[in-house]
Amino acid sequence: QVPSAVKPKVLTYAERASQCTHSVSRRLLKIMEQKKTNLVLSADVTKSKELLDLVDKTGPHICMVKTHADTLDDFCDDFVEKLKQLSNKHNFLIFEDRKFADIGNTVVHQFSGGVHRISDWADVINAHTVPGAGVVQGLQKVAQGKDIGCLLIAEMSSAGNLATGDYTQVTVKIAEENPDFVIGFICLSKLSSNPALLHMTPGVQLKEGQDALGQRYLTPQEVISNRGSDIIIVGRGIYGASDPTEAARQFQIAGYDAYLARLS
Amino acid sequence: QVPSAVKPKVLTYAERASQCTHSVSRRLLKIMEQKKTNLVLSADVTKSKELLDLVDKTGPHICMVKTHADTLDDFCDDFVEKLKQLSNKHNFLIFEDRKFADIGNTVVHQFSGGVHRISDWADVINAHTVPGAGVVQGLQKVAQGKDIGCLLIAEMSSAGNLATGDYTQVTVKIAEENPDFVIGFICLSKLSSNPALLHMTPGVQLKEGQDALGQRYLTPQEVISNRGSDIIIVGRGIYGASDPTEAARQFQIAGYDAYLARLS
Repeated sequence: QVPSAVKPKVLTYAERASQCTHSVSRRLLKIMEQKKTNLVLSADVTKSKELLDLVDKTGPHICMVKTHADTLDDFCDDFVEKLKQLSNKHNFLIFEDRKFADIGNTVVHQFSGGVHRISDWADVINAHTVPGAGVVQGLQKVAQGKDIGCLLIAEMSSAGNLATGDYTQVTVKIAEENPDFVIGFICLSKLSSNPALLHMTPGVQLKEGQDALGQRYLTPQEVISNRGSDIIIVGRGIYGASDPTEAARQFQIAGYDAYLARLS
Repeated sequence: QVPSAVKPKVLTYAERASQCTHSVSRRLLKIMEQKKTNLVLSADVTKSKELLDLVDKTGPHICMVKTHADTLDDFCDDFVEKLKQLSNKHNFLIFEDRKFADIGNTVVHQFSGGVHRISDWADVINAHTVPGAGVVQGLQKVAQGKDIGCLLIAEMSSAGNLATGDYTQVTVKIAEENPDFVIGFICLSKLSSNPALLHMTPGVQLKEGQDALGQRYLTPQEVISNRGSDIIIVGRGIYGASDPTEAARQFQIAGYDAYLARLS
């Protein structure tokens, strides 16, 4: 056997957790190992009560919930309190999918202030890199001293998106240059061999397809086994199901089986 | 004189207003002509009262105010009501600088719902094109039947930004393909010869320079006369001045003089 034919060993979540310097990626990988899930619930509903019910039902099957606080018509401090209680009850992290995309000076206020005060409650946030590295520097200023990790949007699942080629490569570089704050990517496939960087893929359904506004879907098997991503993000496949708990269980199994297949 | 040496006639704001099919660009150009201003105030303060005071003081000098509703700690319906009253009193438009940057299905809710309900009060919004044309389609679905125009972020003023080259060109194409909704660009220089498309440039100060988080500044003269943009967006140069009214007046004069110089 020649060296070039040696398949690199795929590390387990637990092995990777031990190599992470960022507290948030370590916590997330430990939850994934312990609960046997790489499923993130994209809780795209517009009422707090509906979101909390959905999260309580699916909590045992997920490692993280992804929110859009700015789409909740009745967002308030009480909602945040209850979401945090559920994250403790079911042991998952909270990821606010704000997609920060402004200059550093502006994202400082968008992250820390306003009605939503995201930096008070989110474990994970994300940012577009189109404004340049200043967006990461601005967010990191706010995150200083808090346990918050940032994902960079390196690729998108929507049709005709511009996060490709050089855009993606520059984004990977910004991530690798900011290990104290950036914990990984929103992407469609593995982009970095650094075991501390997590790859999370949205637009996952049990069958491939496309919605009316350009969103395209991949399967857990394709995302985890073939493309080498770490985490599947599922929205409509769960909250749109007649039985969201059962749907979450199915995505948990499909995603984890695909991970085990990659390990073997 | 050979034809290639003929300088194309620069249209006045009034001439361009008559060529616009979108009600919002027509209104904005008429305000610019009437009030003799191409100045947009970027009202980046974090308290409603402070914002309203600033806007009331500078209102006579601006054609539009740019807000970040999500950085206002005390955002509420009463604030929106008062801002609208000021926009009537001083005759300016309201531009919510949300930089929508998600897939179509998500921006529908971010634009119409949540605590901010942006589509209820903004005359102008903007979007990043990194998600592809679906972001415009999603926003347009919400804007249907309302007088709201959308700007696309074709270029940015921050250091190392990725809105360049093909990214910018695709953005111009998306704008030109959606004249019923897209009224222009956030950009650093003129990108389209279509007189109905407005060019607005942020990062304007009376002196060139850079802030600590990568924002770079150009002068009104450079932006309007040399680069052929239509509108200057000024934040810290006004709200950070000891006399914001006088600062706004100076930017109004500098911006309008640069426009007159381009006409002649």
